[in-house]
Amino acid sequence: MLKNLPLEKVYQFIEPGPVVLLTTAAPEAPPDIMTMSWHMMMDFEPPLIACVVSGGNHSFAALTKTKECVIAIPDIDLAEVTTAIGNCTGRTVDKFDKFHLTAAAGNEVAAPLIAECFVNLECRVVDTRFVKKYNMFVLECVAAWINPAKAKAKTIHHRGYGEFSVDGEIIKLKSKMR
Amino acid sequence: MLKNLPLEKVYQFIEPGPVVLLTTAAPEAPPDIMTMSWHMMMDFEPPLIACVVSGGNHSFAALTKTKECVIAIPDIDLAEVTTAIGNCTGRTVDKFDKFHLTAAAGNEVAAPLIAECFVNLECRVVDTRFVKKYNMFVLECVAAWINPAKAKAKTIHHRGYGEFSVDGEIIKLKSKMR
Repeated sequence: MLKNLPLEKVYQFIEPGPVVLLTTAAPEAPPDIMTMSWHMMMDFEPPLIACVVSGGNHSFAALTKTKECVIAIPDIDLAEVTTAIGNCTGRTVDKFDKFHLTAAAGNEVAAPLIAECFVNLECRVVDTRFVKKYNMFVLECVAAWINPAKAKAKTIHHRGYGEFSVDGEIIKLKSKMR
Repeated sequence: MLKNLPLEKVYQFIEPGPVVLLTTAAPEAPPDIMTMSWHMMMDFEPPLIACVVSGGNHSFAALTKTKECVIAIPDIDLAEVTTAIGNCTGRTVDKFDKFHLTAAAGNEVAAPLIAECFVNLECRVVDTRFVKKYNMFVLECVAAWINPAKAKAKTIHHRGYGEFSVDGEIIKLKSKMR
């Protein structure tokens, strides 16, 4: 069961740099999923997230057209599915079907949540000025969801060519940083 | 001893989302260091990196003025120093001196490398159009260095309020992703 995640906490899940899944829903086609590692926080609240989506990607067209997406964060249990999603294209494959993932309806956008992911962020594109030159979109997160059963989820971080580091030890240091 | 890192490999160290240190060297002041977690890759080669630097930060002024910086990647051995650097300001503190770090000269920019870090990326600001609205700089990495003695360095990832995940297990999955 997904629970509401306060928007002010969204950065805590993006800032560590995990591999994420981006869903889109273009009209008259099954919703698509892509694997993404080029993203960062731009502001705390409302949460702004920058991401780079390759222009050759099937998701690029849907994102450009609908201006909506969901960033879903997979944990280590979904590592193989996450790379497999990155290895095929939504042009020819219905990825929710092929990878037995559950598309759940969000509150704010038409793009689906991925029920198996431990965090889902409903996002709207709010700035496209860097799309032409860098394929970079600025997203505002307008609703966020967390699966409380996976509070200790370990995420994966891409180091190139299918090598990933998995979250290890958690340390707490004296910090004034938010 | 630092060794040249081919520019095509730079993304492998930024894409996993580690906390990094950003050095700048404004004229007539000691070089400064800040701690940074809001950054992402924008292109492979030449490597383009986007980063967000708070406008209130001492480094923001130096970066705006000199258009040069170094992104230095600390490993777990520097975790406490990394948070301590984030807890004080270069306005009143000479951070290289206070934290006993070694400023090393780069080849391309005046901002210093941090010899204790396992990767150092010399960068130039190449696009400032998103600075005014988002405090976002686009950097091009023009030279890169790695410490071969720290090939297995574990990095840290910020989860908010001084909590960090440390790189754990490394897994290799069948991936067509670069």
